[in-house]
Amino acid sequence: MLEDKNQERTSLAELGEFGLINHLTKHFKLYSSQTAKGVGDDAAVIEASEKQTLVTTDLLVEGVHFDLSYMPLKHLGYKAVMVNLSDVYAMNGVAKQITVSIAVSNRFPLEALEELYAGIQLACDTYKVDLIGGDTTSSTKGMLISVTALGKANKEEVVYRNGAKPTDLIVVSGDLGGAYLGLQVLEREKQVFKVNPQSQPDLDRYTYIIERQLKPEARKDIPELLKELEVKPTSMIDISDGLSSEIMHICTQSKVGCKIYEEKIPLDPQVISTCEEFEIDSTMVALSGGEDYELLFTVSINDFDKIKGNPNLTVIGHITEENEGINLVTRANQELALKAQGWNSFNE
Amino acid sequence: MLEDKNQERTSLAELGEFGLINHLTKHFKLYSSQTAKGVGDDAAVIEASEKQTLVTTDLLVEGVHFDLSYMPLKHLGYKAVMVNLSDVYAMNGVAKQITVSIAVSNRFPLEALEELYAGIQLACDTYKVDLIGGDTTSSTKGMLISVTALGKANKEEVVYRNGAKPTDLIVVSGDLGGAYLGLQVLEREKQVFKVNPQSQPDLDRYTYIIERQLKPEARKDIPELLKELEVKPTSMIDISDGLSSEIMHICTQSKVGCKIYEEKIPLDPQVISTCEEFEIDSTMVALSGGEDYELLFTVSINDFDKIKGNPNLTVIGHITEENEGINLVTRANQELALKAQGWNSFNE
Repeated sequence: MLEDKNQERTSLAELGEFGLINHLTKHFKLYSSQTAKGVGDDAAVIEASEKQTLVTTDLLVEGVHFDLSYMPLKHLGYKAVMVNLSDVYAMNGVAKQITVSIAVSNRFPLEALEELYAGIQLACDTYKVDLIGGDTTSSTKGMLISVTALGKANKEEVVYRNGAKPTDLIVVSGDLGGAYLGLQVLEREKQVFKVNPQSQPDLDRYTYIIERQLKPEARKDIPELLKELEVKPTSMIDISDGLSSEIMHICTQSKVGCKIYEEKIPLDPQVISTCEEFEIDSTMVALSGGEDYELLFTVSINDFDKIKGNPNLTVIGHITEENEGINLVTRANQELALKAQGWNSFNE
Repeated sequence: MLEDKNQERTSLAELGEFGLINHLTKHFKLYSSQTAKGVGDDAAVIEASEKQTLVTTDLLVEGVHFDLSYMPLKHLGYKAVMVNLSDVYAMNGVAKQITVSIAVSNRFPLEALEELYAGIQLACDTYKVDLIGGDTTSSTKGMLISVTALGKANKEEVVYRNGAKPTDLIVVSGDLGGAYLGLQVLEREKQVFKVNPQSQPDLDRYTYIIERQLKPEARKDIPELLKELEVKPTSMIDISDGLSSEIMHICTQSKVGCKIYEEKIPLDPQVISTCEEFEIDSTMVALSGGEDYELLFTVSINDFDKIKGNPNLTVIGHITEENEGINLVTRANQELALKAQGWNSFNE
């Protein structure tokens, strides 16, 4: 994409650091009346509020978290925001502001950063979040994006990871494994392209899973839905590293055990068919795949009637006493101890 | 420093991402009763408050902002926090929390990150700031640190860049140019070391300016002092890119001009003597050097009696009408138009 010889290339040095920030952020709208001052001073200013403030931050590194040979820059900008908003929603909050810092090598022209910021802006517009600050600098190699998201929630609404109790139901939003499989398809096409640059990949059969990888959506709707249903989860986390790793965080911090039922794990038909094609186990993909940015939470069993049958939510198991361990009940009714197989960037 | 063969080297992969974050942050204390939840959930949680929240972020990149051949990691951690706290103080606020994200290549052992976090912890302890979150990931090359700082201020106390008025006095804290000159000395010693690795540099004559470069202090005391003196600046900014660049930000955003008097610019004797040794103009260094992290602000001329004679503060000029331009009055009583010569990372 960056290799298109016909596109304009403006060097970043021409604009300078302040010119660059102004240029990239000038079309952003502010949505929150709470944002008293956005980009342009030593610090942004947010109005006082009776709610608590939620703060989360994530770093995406080229060659570690993303590969620009198949990740368009606009999608990357969008995804970098989603990854952070997802953490705010996982606290049962409303995301309000973000800061975005980027380090880029000289190989990126201004037009590449405009693409990146177009994705960030689309995310801000779609999720009604204000870009309030950031930093833009050069790097000696590649691109890196650091996003911090701020959100709000009433104190009594905030949901932590440590409140799950035995008999609570374990619930997941959406379906799992798609983002990981989308990555597998993209990696395969990259290898094919290396061998034959003329090949035109037919990706129609993988639209859903590729979109799950390239343009994930944070589940802003789930805290809203739960409020509507008058359900406050007892614990909640977002699924960035895979179901297995996330349920272990909840169990460890809540000092409980759990049973997850393999047959209950929600899978999209495209995930099932692509798993068959790749000859990998779909349960393994759902447990360890990561990057789905769905929400995993626990609710009191007394709230079952409120969530039952909701198309966005699936009950996949229940919380047990701590000494019963963290277990997967297979389709063959075997109990297996779960291990965290989440993504670890230092194992590469 | 990292080349000491006797030191222990624990690979980051051994700990994994969560183990690493826990290991690095477990000894940090929380100082603010406002920090309801620090590291360990999807997002940190800050209590509701009647004050406004200040948010600022900065990115430091190895090979661009720092050189580990003379920057000890502990100092780097300290400085990365200072750079951000300085922006909070420049809003006339109190810094309360930080998040720290790092990307590091496999060449860094765990012990290197422990050094880095020892510096971050020293900064937190000294400035009574809470580490509330972050992200730790691998990079394909070098080290990068992204810090976001949060602060608080009463709405009526916040000072922006855009409130300077004609006749206001221009005031600077501390002295200028030291950090830049310290860097010049360190760069020279690095070159000497390359030629003769046995050479033992005698840096006693440069202690102050080297400390200004390696271990800058953010001026937490200045907002406190101003409150004590009952002075509210009409505009304020921190000096990260050099006096010239910063006064231009104030003048542009306030739609005013200014006169800065060369003879008034505060210089440490070590800055003057080192400038003579390097045969560079000390005024140029103060105007364009950067990284001093002093505060530059304007006050009403009616407040002159309140700040007069304070050893922390120097009046260096005054604000004029916009059409008079942004000028330096030299010792020879010549008026020169100032240009921003601030640091631009894309010009390397």
